[in-house]
Amino acid sequence: MNQLELTKILQTAFAEDIGMGDLTSESIFTETQQSKGVYTAKADGVVAGLETIRVGYQLLDSSSKTTLHKKDGDFVEKGEKIAEAEASVRTLLTGERVILNLIQHLSGIATATHQVIRLLDDPKITVTDTRKTLPGLRIFQKYAVRCGGAKNHRFRLDDGVMIKDNHIKAAGNIKSAIESVRARCGHMVKIEVETENKEQVLEAIEAKADVIMLDNCSPEEVKELASIIPEGIVIEVSGGITPKNIAGYRNCGANVISLGWLTHSVRALDISFNLV
Amino acid sequence: MNQLELTKILQTAFAEDIGMGDLTSESIFTETQQSKGVYTAKADGVVAGLETIRVGYQLLDSSSKTTLHKKDGDFVEKGEKIAEAEASVRTLLTGERVILNLIQHLSGIATATHQVIRLLDDPKITVTDTRKTLPGLRIFQKYAVRCGGAKNHRFRLDDGVMIKDNHIKAAGNIKSAIESVRARCGHMVKIEVETENKEQVLEAIEAKADVIMLDNCSPEEVKELASIIPEGIVIEVSGGITPKNIAGYRNCGANVISLGWLTHSVRALDISFNLV
Amino acid sequence: MNQLELTKILQTAFAEDIGMGDLTSESIFTETQQSKGVYTAKADGVVAGLETIRVGYQLLDSSSKTTLHKKDGDFVEKGEKIAEAEASVRTLLTGERVILNLIQHLSGIATATHQVIRLLDDPKITVTDTRKTLPGLRIFQKYAVRCGGAKNHRFRLDDGVMIKDNHIKAAGNIKSAIESVRARCGHMVKIEVETENKEQVLEAIEAKADVIMLDNCSPEEVKELASIIPEGIVIEVSGGITPKNIAGYRNCGANVISLGWLTHSVRALDISFNLV
Amino acid sequence: MNQLELTKILQTAFAEDIGMGDLTSESIFTETQQSKGVYTAKADGVVAGLETIRVGYQLLDSSSKTTLHKKDGDFVEKGEKIAEAEASVRTLLTGERVILNLIQHLSGIATATHQVIRLLDDPKITVTDTRKTLPGLRIFQKYAVRCGGAKNHRFRLDDGVMIKDNHIKAAGNIKSAIESVRARCGHMVKIEVETENKEQVLEAIEAKADVIMLDNCSPEEVKELASIIPEGIVIEVSGGITPKNIAGYRNCGANVISLGWLTHSVRALDISFNLV
Amino acid sequence: MNQLELTKILQTAFAEDIGMGDLTSESIFTETQQSKGVYTAKADGVVAGLETIRVGYQLLDSSSKTTLHKKDGDFVEKGEKIAEAEASVRTLLTGERVILNLIQHLSGIATATHQVIRLLDDPKITVTDTRKTLPGLRIFQKYAVRCGGAKNHRFRLDDGVMIKDNHIKAAGNIKSAIESVRARCGHMVKIEVETENKEQVLEAIEAKADVIMLDNCSPEEVKELASIIPEGIVIEVSGGITPKNIAGYRNCGANVISLGWLTHSVRALDISFNLV
Amino acid sequence: MNQLELTKILQTAFAEDIGMGDLTSESIFTETQQSKGVYTAKADGVVAGLETIRVGYQLLDSSSKTTLHKKDGDFVEKGEKIAEAEASVRTLLTGERVILNLIQHLSGIATATHQVIRLLDDPKITVTDTRKTLPGLRIFQKYAVRCGGAKNHRFRLDDGVMIKDNHIKAAGNIKSAIESVRARCGHMVKIEVETENKEQVLEAIEAKADVIMLDNCSPEEVKELASIIPEGIVIEVSGGITPKNIAGYRNCGANVISLGWLTHSVRALDISFNLV
Repeated sequence: MNQLELTKILQTAFAEDIGMGDLTSESIFTETQQSKGVYTAKADGVVAGLETIRVGYQLLDSSSKTTLHKKDGDFVEKGEKIAEAEASVRTLLTGERVILNLIQHLSGIATATHQVIRLLDDPKITVTDTRKTLPGLRIFQKYAVRCGGAKNHRFRLDDGVMIKDNHIKAAGNIKSAIESVRARCGHMVKIEVETENKEQVLEAIEAKADVIMLDNCSPEEVKELASIIPEGIVIEVSGGITPKNIAGYRNCGANVISLGWLTHSVRALDISFNLV
Repeated sequence: MNQLELTKILQTAFAEDIGMGDLTSESIFTETQQSKGVYTAKADGVVAGLETIRVGYQLLDSSSKTTLHKKDGDFVEKGEKIAEAEASVRTLLTGERVILNLIQHLSGIATATHQVIRLLDDPKITVTDTRKTLPGLRIFQKYAVRCGGAKNHRFRLDDGVMIKDNHIKAAGNIKSAIESVRARCGHMVKIEVETENKEQVLEAIEAKADVIMLDNCSPEEVKELASIIPEGIVIEVSGGITPKNIAGYRNCGANVISLGWLTHSVRALDISFNLV
Repeated sequence: MNQLELTKILQTAFAEDIGMGDLTSESIFTETQQSKGVYTAKADGVVAGLETIRVGYQLLDSSSKTTLHKKDGDFVEKGEKIAEAEASVRTLLTGERVILNLIQHLSGIATATHQVIRLLDDPKITVTDTRKTLPGLRIFQKYAVRCGGAKNHRFRLDDGVMIKDNHIKAAGNIKSAIESVRARCGHMVKIEVETENKEQVLEAIEAKADVIMLDNCSPEEVKELASIIPEGIVIEVSGGITPKNIAGYRNCGANVISLGWLTHSVRALDISFNLV
Repeated sequence: MNQLELTKILQTAFAEDIGMGDLTSESIFTETQQSKGVYTAKADGVVAGLETIRVGYQLLDSSSKTTLHKKDGDFVEKGEKIAEAEASVRTLLTGERVILNLIQHLSGIATATHQVIRLLDDPKITVTDTRKTLPGLRIFQKYAVRCGGAKNHRFRLDDGVMIKDNHIKAAGNIKSAIESVRARCGHMVKIEVETENKEQVLEAIEAKADVIMLDNCSPEEVKELASIIPEGIVIEVSGGITPKNIAGYRNCGANVISLGWLTHSVRALDISFNLV
Repeated sequence: MNQLELTKILQTAFAEDIGMGDLTSESIFTETQQSKGVYTAKADGVVAGLETIRVGYQLLDSSSKTTLHKKDGDFVEKGEKIAEAEASVRTLLTGERVILNLIQHLSGIATATHQVIRLLDDPKITVTDTRKTLPGLRIFQKYAVRCGGAKNHRFRLDDGVMIKDNHIKAAGNIKSAIESVRARCGHMVKIEVETENKEQVLEAIEAKADVIMLDNCSPEEVKELASIIPEGIVIEVSGGITPKNIAGYRNCGANVISLGWLTHSVRALDISFNLV
Repeated sequence: MNQLELTKILQTAFAEDIGMGDLTSESIFTETQQSKGVYTAKADGVVAGLETIRVGYQLLDSSSKTTLHKKDGDFVEKGEKIAEAEASVRTLLTGERVILNLIQHLSGIATATHQVIRLLDDPKITVTDTRKTLPGLRIFQKYAVRCGGAKNHRFRLDDGVMIKDNHIKAAGNIKSAIESVRARCGHMVKIEVETENKEQVLEAIEAKADVIMLDNCSPEEVKELASIIPEGIVIEVSGGITPKNIAGYRNCGANVISLGWLTHSVRALDISFNLV
């Protein structure tokens, strides 16, 4: 994890959660009363973002000590210890919620990513995320996707070109859109075109797109369209693919399946914190 | 919605998503080519955060015009128009993803909140959220919970006292914990105690907690414990309550049910944007 | 003191005071010339914010060493050493003014708070602050009030309800205002009503306010009104109470006296810094 | 007032005061209920910072309208209208406290400055502030000092040299300190030396200081030392001068009197806000 | 230009330049004295960043009016009017330096870019910038490069892979480095390898790099190496190419020439501002 | 160098350059693979900003170790080692570009400053910079000017008065402009007037300016005008002075020569980084 960005989001989150003070812990405990606590998985899953525990407690108390028993990307079973931390009771309890909020979210993403790759069970197809992320959290969510075993699609609007339905509609056709892009963008930029039917696929092939996305296609439609796309052009499938139907895309001929719900509809992995 | 905070999160999100420029839209369209687009519900649900559309486009282009056809808290059906925006094609398409990411998330929260209240179907019980929110998004997530018809629990560690299992363990007992809190906190602060059994409930009653939370209790356990809690003390139930089992808590005698998954495991409401 | 917030305000204050460099100290001293200095009380008072010395010098020079001889809330007499610091002369002198500005202000608040509690001399009445604080400094000013022995009133507009004269005027009456509040706010929120006469007090009692504030009342008026307010409702007195007249409120029957001038009209406690 | 900086401090102050929402006003009033309110002086004084009202309400509601009846630096009498604002009730009441906190503080500074100049009653002596200001507020506090009729001393450590007792002690003597400064600083920088006795004054004269400060001197001592300082060197008096004794410094021969308490021990000017 | 980022950098620059006030203009002119001024080219060149004038004055005074006579990318001759602005004298003169600093810098980049493309005079070769930009200014510098007629290379370390000499040294060889990259990076990422000799070029070809950079090669060396690189792989030349020798690379067979000095050694274009 | 400001600009620059991750280094190297690298001068010059190496690597990896072989202001010859750093390969290579961008720029400024002082070769004349700096970088650029052996002119619009041609035009004449300034500014502020002819010089002398700037004058013109300016008024020459003609100003009678191109048209000093 990027330490500079992790520090920034934790500073934001602590300010948001602590406000002018943790009334409960500051009332009940002295500044010096020390303790120890354990982060434990309450469900099976893949963990991600564990540095949050160490960096989070360090921000609150530079004398705190954190031991990680797992590392990002590890599969954990319900009941397994993830990490232990020693610090003042105040620090341990004031920091708990913010730390859990982030690692449960990121582990939820990693777990879902891991599951979907297993369900797909096709090493010829790369699973990726999308730009459907939450404001301010993209760098962490995309990191969690990698922890789960998938790869990242574009990070931003500036690191790759994706010509989508709205672009095509406003531009008139795929060919002129790609020509405009070629005239402006540098040699490090790949061009992807979103297509909805065979006609658009042929147009994208002719315009030499680097990547052709088949939007909202069934496995059969993918197979048919993939068969007309020449080698060298990457085939991406997207739209409406969920854990329920992803196995159907096994051996469909795509190179990439991108899934928005990996990051926009995350189910947190249950993790608990308990003083020892 | 708080305009100052909405503006801040959108500035963050646009910087995160646009980076050094929208290669696609800036390549294909001139700065002046105007267009119009529509935000449409792709599923039934309760919308929240619609000001995002207006404020988001304003940030990118002060001459843009947005018309909201729905207002926060409205129930929409699949296919209904939510809003329309007029601006340059560049603005409409560059801003689309960030706007959708936020309103789909917030509408997802409002929709889930709305559903759970209907499932519970007990006007004597207030549904609330928790502090299990995502870093930097709490103010918006808690707003969406209100749009869905529920109320907010604590905003932060400084606006209410919640004595939880870890506090009780480290403090030794509930009574001394509450006394410490009373000695430090002002007269505007309510004190809630998390209890796990009858013994703790009795201890909390004796110590005159304002709110007693019954943690991880079945409806039957709630009924039993509620019967010994004197009027004037608020009874909150929390832990493991989901849409699947919430109806069971109807008429259980609680005043409040708080649900972490409303904000930590959000399923985005599907909303689309299309140029007209 | 909250270390994260203290660090932020000191970064702001150093940027504000140092600008592009301390012309004087950087001209006269080499980077390595070491020295030692002492912070000394120049008047009797209660100190607050002493962590400022340690954190401030750490920000300027991570090899600096600070020893605090007093802790926040201690009463010091004129001439007593408060703290000693060892660092380069540059660090000691460049940081001096910012550090003094903050600890003199906070100690001024703590001292005034302490004095007013002694003048009141009524343990049945809690002294509190208000929201009349200076922009960006509330968290520190409210901390200093606690160091002086008082408690905090509301931190913000979101952690308690206070229905004031302007609200009542615009709402029409107290009852409907309280009903609106009850319909929207969660179970952790207390409701206070500001009243100016017996009629309003009776209205607030009927509407079951948690706290009734008696605004601008003499001790006699407080006694009279307090006598009609049932137990269980907190009685707060506010408006025009100063060190000059506070003793008159001893045994007036109020539970709380809140004082705006504790934070809006602060007289700095005189503290000096001298190289040894 | 500097609009960019005023906007920044108000954004900070509103975030600090509003948090996740104004529970009271948002509960009681609809978003559209309009009203009008008046800011009125509750004591005689000099107003400063009135743009705060206009900019503050603009930040909360761009359709708000503010009319200033006074301008910064005006003397107002108790009961005079300072400004009127039209906006939604929510905006008027949510913004009230933050706006009052800033203008009462700045008007308090302007009022005290005005009073001390009248008490001194010597047009040959310029009254100035110091660097004894509150963190994050210097630009506003120094502006208020100008509104009160005085001038500003140094803004920061980088815009003028002041060789103080600690510098002299660590440097060994005044002469070498000034020489070090001359060797490093540009031609736009003036050099001031703080002196405590005749010997130091003579040393400063010989070293050609631009300004000599006489620290903690009685009027008589000032007169004596001023008589030996050649024309062309500015004479500043500082230390222990208050409204109580400043009249004694009339005709003392100084050019400048600088007063720390103008900004470190401010008494807010009482200003009220009432809905019409 | 990205308005959100332009606004941010101008807020930073104004805070940096104005500090606590423009002593000169605020002393000499009243707040209301209006005037008009003209930005004029003092040398031939290509202008870039002209929105700075409009946005800059807007930030200082929302009633200011700016008319641009040129647009970004236009070639201007010495003496030509670039823009006119109407505002208060204070606004015009307080904002002048910050505005000139930015547009002179960006126009200097655009001018140098334009010149080098003319000197090269080979439409088969794309000129690009590098990541050798100044802290905090990359988005603007890269924009100016486009205004000058060239394209952008990578924006950041996350939007393309460049395996440089140090990477190869630490990785052992090009092949394993590329394999590691392929195993981790998504399908939208292009891979460039920096090579220093024929052996490395052959290794990069075998490993199927998307782009091969020939580092520090003479035109003759480029021709020789380009002849062995199969079509489909982009050939980039970099290192030591300046206006003095770039013409020698005409028809050298490269697809791209990247130039660090376009952004790291900028000569400002002379532009003046004069009141009319 | 100011550590607080250096840390801030490096955080900005790393965020700008790294984005969501260094694809290349993170793909090729494990987190723990350690290495060592050397920063070496590739041209003769004066180095500035070397703390950037230490602070930069510390931000990325707190266990990194940096040894500086040179200090700011040192003259280095092509091929000399400047610094060595030990850290993970990832840290060394991810941080390299940002570090080089800043130290090459600052060393470029120091080198040009050093050269111009040698060309002028007149110890009676102080060379200074101007406010013609790049947005957000002034504090560092002005520091580099000092490393090169020159002094700083004004830092900002608030730390000195400069009455320029536009001010004089709008004010009507020099005399009234200076009077306005005297009426408002404190005793620590020096007043400089920009003059273009003998008439203006005489006017500035009469109005007792502290500094008279002779704008765009040849050495002969400077000599003539200097002869009529009384001792005690500083004579500054500015406008059109470059390394090509500066030697002509030797013994011209000026006290100060200020040069905008020192900071607005910087040629980076070539420095390389290589793993050992």
